[in-house]
Formats: sequence, structure tokens, C-alpha cells
Amino acid sequence: MKFDLKQSTEVLAQTPFTLQRMLEGLSPAWTATSGDKEDWGVYDIIGHLIHGEETDWIPRAEIILAQGENKTFVPFDRVAQFEGSNGRPLEELITEFSHLRNTNLEKLVRWELTPQQLDLKGIHPELGEVTLKQLLATWVVHDLNHVSQIARVLARKYESNVGVWKEYLSILN
Amino acid sequence: MKFDLKQSTEVLAQTPFTLQRMLEGLSPAWTATSGDKEDWGVYDIIGHLIHGEETDWIPRAEIILAQGENKTFVPFDRVAQFEGSNGRPLEELITEFSHLRNTNLEKLVRWELTPQQLDLKGIHPELGEVTLKQLLATWVVHDLNHVSQIARVLARKYESNVGVWKEYLSILN
Repeated sequence: MKFDLKQSTEVLAQTPFTLQRMLEGLSPAWTATSGDKEDWGVYDIIGHLIHGEETDWIPRAEIILAQGENKTFVPFDRVAQFEGSNGRPLEELITEFSHLRNTNLEKLVRWELTPQQLDLKGIHPELGEVTLKQLLATWVVHDLNHVSQIARVLARKYESNVGVWKEYLSILN
Repeated sequence: MKFDLKQSTEVLAQTPFTLQRMLEGLSPAWTATSGDKEDWGVYDIIGHLIHGEETDWIPRAEIILAQGENKTFVPFDRVAQFEGSNGRPLEELITEFSHLRNTNLEKLVRWELTPQQLDLKGIHPELGEVTLKQLLATWVVHDLNHVSQIARVLARKYESNVGVWKEYLSILN
């Protein structure tokens, strides 16, 4: 599938709704923070998505579009959520993520990006040169990565309950 | 996490809503059948979930609860959806899955299963002896497995667009 701005925003627009539906009504036994920066709980993943909306995708797109002297992105803090979320209820975090995502998508649509702009480049602090198009595609795949991760975190909590079926369940293997 | 009937139904009840939200508004380029029994598209995964509601979870629970002469489950057809779905729109399949899931969960709740019943056993045609509790836990993890699989199928469609970011995106690796 070739990169397409409209098809990218289709996925980006659904993610807050997907997470709301996936997680509403689940007991904290399913969704609580793990307290472990190396092995996140659902709560920690939502905090990470919020931090991405605030500091990653759109701010980096703005650096690329500005084409200023310094095109290097600010490094992203992958564990900021362990300080930032501070015991707020999960529903509140999901709502905050939804609002931030809406605001960011409105900005993206307002830009009316041209193919030329999508090919503009910035510098990732570790990976080097990247295009705006690649940044936006990565935003999409990053969402899907964390939806998949949430499903895996939930599934693993039931790992000891499935008995011999475990070998059929690739999410546990 | 120990098996808990209420906490299990929390996840089972959300899955149709999760899928609706995850997939509504996505172009067919994201969701179409792959036509490949070894490498399913999103459309094929939803067909598989429908077939599970019809022939797998509740029918097998009924075999266990009956404790009849023959406690062996009917083998599950993993590719039945390639014949069954016949080009119906994806939205229609998701709605059908939702209705089947609701009906099945109503039945499960009406049973008011006791701890003794949850420990009753049936025979899986390949895996051997399994308990009702394990069947129900597997139903939960199976849902999560396919939510995760859908995210992965979507992500892979954008694999060639993310450039050097690929190494950070575990869903592509």
C-alpha cells in the first residue's frame, strides 16, 4: 500500500475510539500501571500515547515544515508517562489523548500538505534523515503497535488460565 | 491474574465495539480480504470470529456442561470464512459478529456457572482434556489475539512507508 494522507488519517482518527471501547468497563486488574518502565501496563501505554501527541508527531512535523537552520528533532522521552500521569484515572487519560489527537489531526488537515512538502526532510537524533511522509506513516504504525501491545498485555494476564490451548495462541508465544 | 468469570466477560463484551471502532471509516485498501488462507486480511479475521461464535465457544461449553457419553468437541474449521462470507460488506460482518456475541454472552450469564461447573472437563480433538474454565479463558485470549492480529495486518500494509523507523516498530519485526 502506498502512503496516502487521507488513508493515514483514517487510522489516526479511529485510535482514540478504539482505545475507549477496548478499555471501558475493564477492571483495574486488567488495566493498572505495571510500575515497571521495562514492561508497561495498559495505563502506562496510554500515558505514552499522550506524551507522543504533546511532544512527538506534530512538533516534529513542524520542525520539518519550517526547514530552519536546525532540523534535528528533540529526543523523545519514552518513559515520561511514569512521572506525568500521577495516578489520574485511566478514563481521564483516554479522554485527554482523544482531545490531543483531535487537535493534532485538525492541524494536520489544515496544513493541506502538498506532495513536495511530504518529501521534506528532518533529522532524527538517532536514525538520521527522515521525510515528513515517513514521519506520518510511522505515526499510523505506532498507533497500531500500541493497540497490539495493549491486546498482548491483557492476554498475558490470562496466560496461566488457558491450559493446553496456549500453543494455539500466538499472542502468548 | 486468576480466572474470574465477570472479568472474562468484561473483555468478551467489549470486543465487538472495539472492532467496530477500529475498522469503521477505513478504506478497503486497509481491510479487504487477502484471498489467502495462510495470510488473512482483516475481512477474513472477522469471518473467522463469526464462525467461532457459531461453532466453537458456546457449543463446546454446552458439550462440557452436558457431561454426556461423548465429551469430544467437533473440530473447528479455521478457514470456513473463505466460503462463508461471500463478499458481504465488512460492516455487515461486524454487525453479525456483535449480535452473535451478545446472544452468546447472554447465554453464558444465564447459566450462572458454579466453581464446580467451571472445573468440568471436555476433550479437545487435538489437545486432549480441558476444563470449562480453560475454554472460557481461551475465548478471551483468542479475542485479544485477533485484535492484535488486525493491528498487525494494518501495520504491515504501511511497512514500506516508515523508512528507517522500522527498527523501532516491533509490530513490523
